[in-house]
Amino acid sequence: MKTRIGIYGYGNLGKGVEKATLKNSDVELMGIFTRRAPESVKSELGTKVYAASEAASFTDRIDVMILCGGSATDLMGQTPELVKLFNVVDSFDTHARIPEHFADVDQAGKESGHLGVISCGWDPGMFSLMRVYGNAVLPDGQDYTFWGKGVSQGHSDAIRRIEGVLDARQYTIPVPAALEAVRAGKNPTLSTREKHTRLCYVVVKEGADKAKIEKEIKEMPNYFSDYDTTVNFITKEELARDHAGLPHGGFVFRSGETSDGTKHMIEYSLKLDSNPEFTGSVLVAVARATARLAQEGAKGCKTILDLPPAYLSALSGEELRAHML
Amino acid sequence: MKTRIGIYGYGNLGKGVEKATLKNSDVELMGIFTRRAPESVKSELGTKVYAASEAASFTDRIDVMILCGGSATDLMGQTPELVKLFNVVDSFDTHARIPEHFADVDQAGKESGHLGVISCGWDPGMFSLMRVYGNAVLPDGQDYTFWGKGVSQGHSDAIRRIEGVLDARQYTIPVPAALEAVRAGKNPTLSTREKHTRLCYVVVKEGADKAKIEKEIKEMPNYFSDYDTTVNFITKEELARDHAGLPHGGFVFRSGETSDGTKHMIEYSLKLDSNPEFTGSVLVAVARATARLAQEGAKGCKTILDLPPAYLSALSGEELRAHML
Repeated sequence: MKTRIGIYGYGNLGKGVEKATLKNSDVELMGIFTRRAPESVKSELGTKVYAASEAASFTDRIDVMILCGGSATDLMGQTPELVKLFNVVDSFDTHARIPEHFADVDQAGKESGHLGVISCGWDPGMFSLMRVYGNAVLPDGQDYTFWGKGVSQGHSDAIRRIEGVLDARQYTIPVPAALEAVRAGKNPTLSTREKHTRLCYVVVKEGADKAKIEKEIKEMPNYFSDYDTTVNFITKEELARDHAGLPHGGFVFRSGETSDGTKHMIEYSLKLDSNPEFTGSVLVAVARATARLAQEGAKGCKTILDLPPAYLSALSGEELRAHML
Repeated sequence: MKTRIGIYGYGNLGKGVEKATLKNSDVELMGIFTRRAPESVKSELGTKVYAASEAASFTDRIDVMILCGGSATDLMGQTPELVKLFNVVDSFDTHARIPEHFADVDQAGKESGHLGVISCGWDPGMFSLMRVYGNAVLPDGQDYTFWGKGVSQGHSDAIRRIEGVLDARQYTIPVPAALEAVRAGKNPTLSTREKHTRLCYVVVKEGADKAKIEKEIKEMPNYFSDYDTTVNFITKEELARDHAGLPHGGFVFRSGETSDGTKHMIEYSLKLDSNPEFTGSVLVAVARATARLAQEGAKGCKTILDLPPAYLSALSGEELRAHML
């Protein structure tokens, strides 16, 4: 029996999920659901596109709906709403509001008898798993998470809102010296500035005041003022040629001692050509686990921390024990 | 309520588990059980030592018995036997015989109503988790596992059995060029010889034929003949001074594509000052998960692949979601 999934929202992430279904032969993609006019949305792979309002008529044909909206405006409303109809998976990544989102999805899921698995991707997601395993097996230690080199969409958007800016791409980059100090087991105390730098490529309108734009970027509170930021002005053509992708990645370290002076270092890293494609691929694996748990009667809300790892795999327990354990 | 554990077998691994209990305040160590005369065994931390034959009288006082015997001769008998009395955890690491061991423990556990979690440590264990997660989130890809730099006890023992050898220490070392090719995403096909080298420090009897011993090591089938092996003869004092520890570690890579040419690289590495102390620390985290699952009614056999990650942590679900997700 294949796991029948739906995609709710067809931006970069939805497209990533769609591609991931081609790599998972035990998963069947039943349709894409969009809030735009369905006839205006063309699936890259020829998947059927339906209006979001039609989703309710698919409850018998979809085992798990993967919600591909954004955390800022979509998911806090959509996930509790859709879990009334389906088992759902989302990639909600506003860390500070996860407890609230969890409570909403948990209540709606328990009432409807469906399971919602929230905040899956790589951070939150794979990185969360590494933090939890690292802390569990080295309880006396220190955590470090670094992001990048990669494109931060939020920071790119913030630059685009500045007057005179036509387009922008912002890369978050871990400071090599900080990575090395952590890797060497020095357990450094690192300020925000010491952990990451920010590199910006900006396209401006003709005649725009570049010095003023650069100053505005570098002094922007929350986004840039606590970082060493480099601003490069480039042409629209250069941006399209050299910065079209959405690469990302990062590092999770856990260092710890098991007795006086006996040290251990755990390092996990991701280097991703495409943030939305990798995130989409994680969501499909989580959807598989969600379908299995729901079939066993699980309902309410869970996160990737609650899913038995074997449930994410297409292989059986026997196969995993024989070949991967 | 603390998780009350017992240690069954007090070699290097048992001592590692004992130390790990000091780092986990929600775990209480109830005693060490040994097949030797208990009065001949002195706990390094003052834990009470009992005869293995007394274990049966502790069924009311121990939630999880951690079996610290060896895979070669102890665990295939001990784990199915002890799971008749206790929930148990072991570090069985003979990969080829895991399915058989699983079946034995599963049957005995289901009959007695106890849960046994087998093959926990770092490989099998943390590395197995990385292989399963890596394959689940990048189903179209390739796996690489490298071990070391670290001491292989089996290979050290094999050298010690050669005539004229007094003592030996064997390090397994990943070939840097192989690591780099994998890390660079080249998906190389690597022979055994191209993946690891073997470095031996050997103490011989006075007048022993060193050339003959070196030849015998390098040509030993299974252990050394497929590798580039370096043999260094050193004194007993040098061995004690420079090679007393049991460091180990390694790397798990998963590379894969989510669409044509869109590549991703996952790398996990461990650098461990002490193999038995780290393994012992993993076993304690797994014992915590085992106690929780057993309390929910789980019985039979499971592996770390079946344990929800959150169950390994001393933190509550709320705490994990607020701080680690």
